[in-house]
Amino acid sequence: MTTKILLDESRLPDRWYNVVPDLPAPPPPPLHPGTREPLGPDDLAPLFPADLIEQEVTAERFVEIPEEVREVYRLWRPTPLIRAHRLERALGTPARIYVKYEGGSPSGSHKPNTAVPQAFYNARQGVRRLTTETGAGQWGSALSFACAQFDLDCEVWMVRASYDQKPYRRSMMELFGARVHASPSPLTASGAKVLADDPDSPGSLGIAISEAVESAAPDDTRYALGSVLNHVLMHQTVIGEEALEQLAMVDEAPDLIVGCTGGGSNFAGLSFPFLREKLRGRMNPEIRAVEPEACPSFTRGRYAYDFGDTAGLTPLLKMHTLGHDFVPDPIHAGGLRYHGMAPLLSHIYDLGLFGAEAKPQRECFEAGVLFARTEGIVPAPEPTHALAAAVEEARRCVETGEPKVILTALCGHGHLDMAAYDRFLAGRMEDQALPQSRLDEALTTLP
Amino acid sequence: MTTKILLDESRLPDRWYNVVPDLPAPPPPPLHPGTREPLGPDDLAPLFPADLIEQEVTAERFVEIPEEVREVYRLWRPTPLIRAHRLERALGTPARIYVKYEGGSPSGSHKPNTAVPQAFYNARQGVRRLTTETGAGQWGSALSFACAQFDLDCEVWMVRASYDQKPYRRSMMELFGARVHASPSPLTASGAKVLADDPDSPGSLGIAISEAVESAAPDDTRYALGSVLNHVLMHQTVIGEEALEQLAMVDEAPDLIVGCTGGGSNFAGLSFPFLREKLRGRMNPEIRAVEPEACPSFTRGRYAYDFGDTAGLTPLLKMHTLGHDFVPDPIHAGGLRYHGMAPLLSHIYDLGLFGAEAKPQRECFEAGVLFARTEGIVPAPEPTHALAAAVEEARRCVETGEPKVILTALCGHGHLDMAAYDRFLAGRMEDQALPQSRLDEALTTLP
Repeated sequence: MTTKILLDESRLPDRWYNVVPDLPAPPPPPLHPGTREPLGPDDLAPLFPADLIEQEVTAERFVEIPEEVREVYRLWRPTPLIRAHRLERALGTPARIYVKYEGGSPSGSHKPNTAVPQAFYNARQGVRRLTTETGAGQWGSALSFACAQFDLDCEVWMVRASYDQKPYRRSMMELFGARVHASPSPLTASGAKVLADDPDSPGSLGIAISEAVESAAPDDTRYALGSVLNHVLMHQTVIGEEALEQLAMVDEAPDLIVGCTGGGSNFAGLSFPFLREKLRGRMNPEIRAVEPEACPSFTRGRYAYDFGDTAGLTPLLKMHTLGHDFVPDPIHAGGLRYHGMAPLLSHIYDLGLFGAEAKPQRECFEAGVLFARTEGIVPAPEPTHALAAAVEEARRCVETGEPKVILTALCGHGHLDMAAYDRFLAGRMEDQALPQSRLDEALTTLP
Repeated sequence: MTTKILLDESRLPDRWYNVVPDLPAPPPPPLHPGTREPLGPDDLAPLFPADLIEQEVTAERFVEIPEEVREVYRLWRPTPLIRAHRLERALGTPARIYVKYEGGSPSGSHKPNTAVPQAFYNARQGVRRLTTETGAGQWGSALSFACAQFDLDCEVWMVRASYDQKPYRRSMMELFGARVHASPSPLTASGAKVLADDPDSPGSLGIAISEAVESAAPDDTRYALGSVLNHVLMHQTVIGEEALEQLAMVDEAPDLIVGCTGGGSNFAGLSFPFLREKLRGRMNPEIRAVEPEACPSFTRGRYAYDFGDTAGLTPLLKMHTLGHDFVPDPIHAGGLRYHGMAPLLSHIYDLGLFGAEAKPQRECFEAGVLFARTEGIVPAPEPTHALAAAVEEARRCVETGEPKVILTALCGHGHLDMAAYDRFLAGRMEDQALPQSRLDEALTTLP
């Protein structure tokens, strides 16, 4: 009875998968916020190195993973695919549940899968310093680690509220060698402006993005983003490529694939390789994104051009959005609190190639507790959304008797999220579905 | 270039190794504190189930691991053996450094290796509830998880100071389903007595042991201990057995084995199988225990009969001890703050079969930071002691040009110890070598 399906290092993927050429229609381009014309590579050059801009728009189906990147990947990849026997037994289900676990990475989530190549391509182009923003700190700690591998300086603007409330994520970034600033900071014009108006500002992701982008102005400095963009989603496909091979090793094909979505990179990374096989007619899984009821961009957002940040500094992206100045309730799954959705995923959803559902917070934590007690891994709050959907489907199989094969990605551990579990176990957690009136109001701000 | 040497689940060890019959002399027996006569199995029956008492004194070289235990082990075992290429490169050393990583377990350390069989044997004997004490919380969270696997209630007395300062370890225990009490508690006579004298007592491991032992009185309840005893050390030998096989897979034999020692179970688990091979003349590694300068039981303690707890309730154990009411400085490696050393390890050390050294705290954290930045794993403060010794030896190899093979166990991750790294990175950490006068005074209390 196999519990962990392990891939040998020799079978670490040697290329990323780009789903774009396999789609029945191309995704709508990002637009320049001034001219509303499609954006060209030159528009992005001040922010990103040439290799990443090329990957953002490539028509190639596969992009080779540089050996320098694979060498770092090998510290934690290939990651295990776990057959959740004990969870199945606790549910009494005939379903077979497989979990691709990304929590063994240096920062404890899937984020290093893209942080490492981003740091590598920047270093190869002679960049000396990367700037970024971070909310709860997962992305910031991944980029900090990646920069340490390629001798890059790393500077992170961390939303003030998180900086004060989650000191250990900041410690981890510093441990990996990064400089971390609470945002708003007096170090940038945009930060100083906010502080002048409100010295006690708790900050926001939008402000932190502005500060990181502004600080990327020097020639030797670039900016890095941890989700949403095409190249980020592509880097994450190592998750799905490995899972595809691992399921084949035990002669399984998934009936249902569920993943949690914030910006969408984890879900895309898991599902794109399976979507490719589905489009080729080699398997026919149902694919489903799971998002929080407090931030339901797929299920209740509008598919429209909108800004990626609150301040309206980024290009216009066509995506499922709740409006760029929508501020979700402070649920514990900080990584899922983004007003928009990756444009590429939004396009594929619009094509009807996968489904989506929204889950309330407490159902997710209930699944997280069940998973921890049965399988011995404490999940981060984000992937508990997908676990809740997997548990729900497995319970349905108890009724129908169907031995469905369910696949999900456990994109990170919850060791630094114990305060949230504390709150749940003490009965002090609330569900926070988004009221329609608030959504209607937020959508009026669409450009 | 292999980075992670993985063992397939089919090669999970099926027996534990008992080093006692292979030793040139038997270890001195524990004594009854009243009669000073050797302890018999009946004396232990109120505290431990028959299987564990049998294992405590067995003369068999190998003890079969029950399939029910192996099934739980498979959630995280076999654990990876990591070749630390990037650390070696950072040091510029010709040494080859191998790290056996136990941090992927449910509680994040090696402790579940013994918690799971202890819970299993208790459940098989009809026990319904286990009690234990915990200091920083590693052992308590391991036993909480183990009890959840065999439907046992678990009740943990956690030292009040840790209970207040490390709320997330408590949360993890509760997440796994345990009841956690701050110790001293009003629930036991011994706790109530302490509280009567000092309502604000911060507690101690000694008091917590008294409370857990007292609470194990009902017929359906037993007590569990996370280190020190023979059966605990034996359960941990899965670490060394796997490492032995993994090194053989890459045709290596260790020149130096270093492990950190608190009660000694992690070091024993790693080293005993290699000690067996050494005694048989099959390899000749130097084996070395590494302890904190603040709590140097091997290097500066006395080898004498002493109590295992502060209050003097336990049997008398012959061990390297700093005196049973010695209270080490509050270093961050909480798991190494024990006044004594496992009697079996003390005996083997006395036989001259391995060496020991003491390390100051800052050198250990420096090694921990270097390891995190190069290898992408944040070590718990305890194993940084062994890492510091490995790094020192690897630096010596830079001088001598020797391509030594160094093996160590990274017995846990430091995700819940970020406050300690914070302190170190901010330059606010101090070395705390034990003054001779304090040691002399502590040793006057030996019975």
